[in-house]
Amino acid sequence: MERIPILRMGEFLLVTIQVDMHDQLALALQEDLAERIRKTQARGVLIDISSLEIVDSFIGRMISTIAGLSKIMDAQTVLVGMQPAVAITLVELGLSLPGVATALDAERGMALLRRRSTTA
Amino acid sequence: MERIPILRMGEFLLVTIQVDMHDQLALALQEDLAERIRKTQARGVLIDISSLEIVDSFIGRMISTIAGLSKIMDAQTVLVGMQPAVAITLVELGLSLPGVATALDAERGMALLRRRSTTA
Repeated sequence: MERIPILRMGEFLLVTIQVDMHDQLALALQEDLAERIRKTQARGVLIDISSLEIVDSFIGRMISTIAGLSKIMDAQTVLVGMQPAVAITLVELGLSLPGVATALDAERGMALLRRRSTTA
Repeated sequence: MERIPILRMGEFLLVTIQVDMHDQLALALQEDLAERIRKTQARGVLIDISSLEIVDSFIGRMISTIAGLSKIMDAQTVLVGMQPAVAITLVELGLSLPGVATALDAERGMALLRRRSTTA
């Protein structure tokens, strides 16, 4: 079965979403991520959506779920690489992504996670 | 047009290949990567193929081309996350991927790039 890869980068995990998400794939990602957070004791999760041109409410909900899941496992979530058009759509849809920090790109997101995990 | 995202991680670039590659996409990736290496002065490129269950000669050639391209731009290439079945196929196809270093996962690949770029 197709799966979204989760890469370990030091104490953080990186998920790059490039493909169209559907129910099964989103569920698999959530399960894999929870398992990886536990196994690696990751302090943060970076979700890169720079290749997504469209983010609908399904993806929005999935991101919120991942953020909630990470939070109860003591990891922070940062969403990076959002295209301007996606940001506009999210605002228009009223998807404010509560509990999800954002950063312009992966590098800034990583820096944000580092600052937060040292002050936590 | 669909594009493979290239993420900057400090002085390295990370490319996660998840989708089926075709000519146009491979060409676009090579162009984007060359442009990003120049712009960011990256010292290394990590190519993650952990979600690929099949690597054919087309992908093999693309990876070799990327490695060659990176090399003349003074960046090293490390291929990470290869599944065992893919490794077997590559050997059977006689694709030895000259000039491409490999590492088990992204973290080890990053460590390899760090060691190499400090001793270079």
